Amino acid sequence: MNEENQLKDLEGAVCPLPLSHGDRIVMGHGSGGRLSHELVEHLFLPPFDNPALRAGDDAGVVQPAPGIRLAVSIDSHVVSPLFFPGGDIGRLAVCGTVNDVAMLGATPLYLTAGFILEEGLDASTLARVVDSMHIAAQEAGVAIVAGDTKVVQRGNADGLYITTSGVGMIPPDVHIGGALARPGDRVIVSGTLGDHGIAVLAARGELGFQTEIESDVAPLNHLVSAMLAASREVHVLRDPTRGGLATTLNEIARQSGVCILLDENSIPVRPAVRAACEMLGFDPLYVANEGKLVAIVAQQETDKVLEAMRSTRYGSESVIVGEVQAAPAKRVLMKTFIGTTRVVDVLAGEMLPRIC
Amino acid sequence: MNEENQLKDLEGAVCPLPLSHGDRIVMGHGSGGRLSHELVEHLFLPPFDNPALRAGDDAGVVQPAPGIRLAVSIDSHVVSPLFFPGGDIGRLAVCGTVNDVAMLGATPLYLTAGFILEEGLDASTLARVVDSMHIAAQEAGVAIVAGDTKVVQRGNADGLYITTSGVGMIPPDVHIGGALARPGDRVIVSGTLGDHGIAVLAARGELGFQTEIESDVAPLNHLVSAMLAASREVHVLRDPTRGGLATTLNEIARQSGVCILLDENSIPVRPAVRAACEMLGFDPLYVANEGKLVAIVAQQETDKVLEAMRSTRYGSESVIVGEVQAAPAKRVLMKTFIGTTRVVDVLAGEMLPRIC
Repeated sequence: MNEENQLKDLEGAVCPLPLSHGDRIVMGHGSGGRLSHELVEHLFLPPFDNPALRAGDDAGVVQPAPGIRLAVSIDSHVVSPLFFPGGDIGRLAVCGTVNDVAMLGATPLYLTAGFILEEGLDASTLARVVDSMHIAAQEAGVAIVAGDTKVVQRGNADGLYITTSGVGMIPPDVHIGGALARPGDRVIVSGTLGDHGIAVLAARGELGFQTEIESDVAPLNHLVSAMLAASREVHVLRDPTRGGLATTLNEIARQSGVCILLDENSIPVRPAVRAACEMLGFDPLYVANEGKLVAIVAQQETDKVLEAMRSTRYGSESVIVGEVQAAPAKRVLMKTFIGTTRVVDVLAGEMLPRIC
Repeated sequence: MNEENQLKDLEGAVCPLPLSHGDRIVMGHGSGGRLSHELVEHLFLPPFDNPALRAGDDAGVVQPAPGIRLAVSIDSHVVSPLFFPGGDIGRLAVCGTVNDVAMLGATPLYLTAGFILEEGLDASTLARVVDSMHIAAQEAGVAIVAGDTKVVQRGNADGLYITTSGVGMIPPDVHIGGALARPGDRVIVSGTLGDHGIAVLAARGELGFQTEIESDVAPLNHLVSAMLAASREVHVLRDPTRGGLATTLNEIARQSGVCILLDENSIPVRPAVRAACEMLGFDPLYVANEGKLVAIVAQQETDKVLEAMRSTRYGSESVIVGEVQAAPAKRVLMKTFIGTTRVVDVLAGEMLPRIC
């Protein structure tokens, strides 16, 4: 783009523009990676700026009354296809928002759901999705207390989109956030990585071969409760969705001003996911998860927390995958299988569009 | 649809189906009228059932801690075009949710916003929308504390959709809801009807003639505060958006088990809106508003409330348009210009798609 065009595009713009990728939205702006961050920092944060949003966590923390801290979050869901092995857009919409709220240590209480339906959608398809939302909400123990439905003309919503927003209550003595990782802390993941992204890809028929991989989409709030019952020295919780574990850990390293050192040998990946990733040229560290969390925990409490995690349905395969160091600050490094150390960067561009 | 097809369609459905209109979603399911109600009652309420949702108000009321009552709401916005005289999708998204929360008498505190963007969207268009959201949020005095962005392929989101969710705090002594209208109460509207719907239609070039009509889209929370400062005998508040005043009053008549009697002579409609409606065969009672409210107030407090409303920016043209009677229950009647009385029913089908 030449300078004249840049100036022209800037005329109507109130926020700092253009984006580095040019003057148009590309799929990568929805990836959760570098372009998503740029969109937030250049376009959303300047006008909306406030402490809750600037914190950059999965949910905003607000205090509506003295002594009451709420975690509030929102996620739009546009996954294609609507149904995939292990889940569907309804289960995803409930779990995604339950998990965002839970990652602040909050007990999710209420969800609201906004539906954008495409004219011509089968009512029975919608009923299946709604029933799946109900089952996931029951499992998580949350009520859906408000909703909205809009209908757009055929071709304008690819079936349906669901936006869910959640409100959770943070217990008074719980303080969890992306900026609270400290040198010496241990990094735990609650199970295998990459299952969701590869399952959705397989459902699209894009793998070119059969696989038994199922999405891990699940509500993690009961897992978080078990962790907090075991120890209050859980410093950071995050669910590595879009952009995968690599992008999530980079966010935390930046927020906390620390280095996170991963051990490639200890990172759990199912053989079928690893095989699919190798054939497609993907790195499982960047593939989305929808039922996993990464926890950064004080070293001396790690065993207690791990034991609590392993006692739960969705944390039975929890393992330590790394530790926090002081330097080099704001970096994620990985000790590889062959003993070298490499930088693990955030996702650049878009690897797997519309997986959530 | 014959019986065999009905049975076939029912096989995969978990909720009571099919809908009366057949087995597919039609534009009317997003109208806010009869088909929307049917969708909620047949498809969403059975699985999601809980007291907050069943109340059928603009926002759900929840109690996260003793003495704390929150109003939570969500609205997806799919208006076409994105910009129209008097507003745009950003202002609409903020005001729509602020108003839903305010209609429970709550002070709106926080919003969250989920964006679904179409690949290829101009970043400067998004920046204009975001800036408009910021200005509307500032006017309402609410912060946008969490957000999410997804990108879908070209052709899958008609530019952009915005879903906003809101949380408001209900003062301890405020009790407002659609079920609280009582015989003898007066019905007030805060200004002229139909401006928003006709302005959007004009922006689409569908009127076939020029008009100066602007959308009324505005945050009504300060108006509500002024009303509640004047009297706590405000029984019902509702913003007559999709489906217009007629549909909104029918909802209230049903929730409260009362009759609402309107006086056609006192219903305020701008001459330009009336002219447009007459040419198009629309009834202004069914056209959407985005900056108006209807209030049902104890008779003896009506003057105080009216005076308070008229002292505010968005309530300066407030008038009494009718009263509540005991019978015929669950009905809206109107004394017409010519002195007869007719039934005012809910919107059937879809009059103006995608106006919010």
